[in-house]
Amino acid sequence: MIKRGFQVAARFGHHKPLPRNPQILPRLHLVSAFGSSTDSLVARFCPEKTDFKDYALPNASWCPDMLSLYQEFLEKTKSDSWIKLPSFKSNREHIRGLKLPSGLVVASDKSDQRIFTRCIQDEGQGYEYVIFFHPSKKKSVCLFQPGPYLEGPPGFAHGGSLAAMMDETFSKTAYLAGEGLFTLSLNIRFKNLIPVGSLAVLNIQVEKIEDQKLYMSCITHSRDEQTVYAKSSGVFLQLQLEEESPQEQ
Amino acid sequence: MIKRGFQVAARFGHHKPLPRNPQILPRLHLVSAFGSSTDSLVARFCPEKTDFKDYALPNASWCPDMLSLYQEFLEKTKSDSWIKLPSFKSNREHIRGLKLPSGLVVASDKSDQRIFTRCIQDEGQGYEYVIFFHPSKKKSVCLFQPGPYLEGPPGFAHGGSLAAMMDETFSKTAYLAGEGLFTLSLNIRFKNLIPVGSLAVLNIQVEKIEDQKLYMSCITHSRDEQTVYAKSSGVFLQLQLEEESPQEQ
Repeated sequence: MIKRGFQVAARFGHHKPLPRNPQILPRLHLVSAFGSSTDSLVARFCPEKTDFKDYALPNASWCPDMLSLYQEFLEKTKSDSWIKLPSFKSNREHIRGLKLPSGLVVASDKSDQRIFTRCIQDEGQGYEYVIFFHPSKKKSVCLFQPGPYLEGPPGFAHGGSLAAMMDETFSKTAYLAGEGLFTLSLNIRFKNLIPVGSLAVLNIQVEKIEDQKLYMSCITHSRDEQTVYAKSSGVFLQLQLEEESPQEQ
Repeated sequence: MIKRGFQVAARFGHHKPLPRNPQILPRLHLVSAFGSSTDSLVARFCPEKTDFKDYALPNASWCPDMLSLYQEFLEKTKSDSWIKLPSFKSNREHIRGLKLPSGLVVASDKSDQRIFTRCIQDEGQGYEYVIFFHPSKKKSVCLFQPGPYLEGPPGFAHGGSLAAMMDETFSKTAYLAGEGLFTLSLNIRFKNLIPVGSLAVLNIQVEKIEDQKLYMSCITHSRDEQTVYAKSSGVFLQLQLEEESPQEQ
């Protein structure tokens, strides 16, 4: 398992590619010690003032369960070190001033890009979600309400929509907890279907950080915790973003 | 691993729930022998005439690789038993005249529902894909072109968008190959990022059908097969859809 993960890291640019693993992406610089503290990452990720629209705010489509749990966590941001993460239209806005390592930059055609989980902008029709992050405990909670455009079986959320919500919450958690940048693996066991329009709560925990990889777990359940919707794990590769030069900004 | 899968089946309604596994969904009728042949499932799934719009047809946004591979497979439908699957706006259209087992029916508010992978209707912005299925070989090929609304890292498809595409292709394959209805597990190892606007090819194979479960594998690669984007496996639970009564149709 560890060997396999390490081979994957080689594909994503480990500085010593292993034999028999052709390096497809250009070589990237993987630093061995990650310099950015969670505090500095959070400070940059959650600007006090920004012109970008935050989509992780209550709207008329939120069900009562979602609204009340949001208010509960908002209270915790005042006293218990929880942080409400903003959610912009694109990751480009989240990492403004930074860019992917140079081996991973593609030409942009300046089209209208959106992060997948904000692909539908009609309130309540697609993804409604908000992520709270606890820096010292290295855990996150995501409140997720799938709309009718996220359907799989009639009346229920598509398994893939939950998989994407997990990947996105893992992704933001991994970045803030330790500069985790790319999903290496995602393993999901589905237990029950989520009715469209209802609240699912994702509880994510960073289990360990080892060999430039973050290992995380997630349990998704109903608000009353009586119904487990899915259990999953995710492994992310640590990679540092690079500063953009002034002419790129 | 098998034991775990069996426990999950209990949650989704196995007729003999195992001890220590509370049955959350209402009890469903799981037949031990699945009566519908792949031929009859395909015949119902691919009507010669329908009023529903098929979204799995070429449009101006398709890249040259996607168009030419589509034409190649279309040729194979004439001589080599491959079938091009239609793709409607909702699974409700795919299973018209049928419904989920009665324990899984939810009240519908008659809102505008969409299957998740057709959630974005602007050509080229979201999911562009078409699935070809080979009944006797029990395998599928999905041509997938992620648009700029499916972004994760700037310029590349979100890992969750590929996860959902895999789940959807697994789902249609599982249904036609053996009435696989619900995802029990999905395990993905990501190898390389897919540039937005380019073609990714998903090759899915049913590996075995055992204990009312379908086991499938998927390799996703570039058209020239030089770049592997991801490898995955999926397990689906077999469950028969029920005939709708005339007043429900």
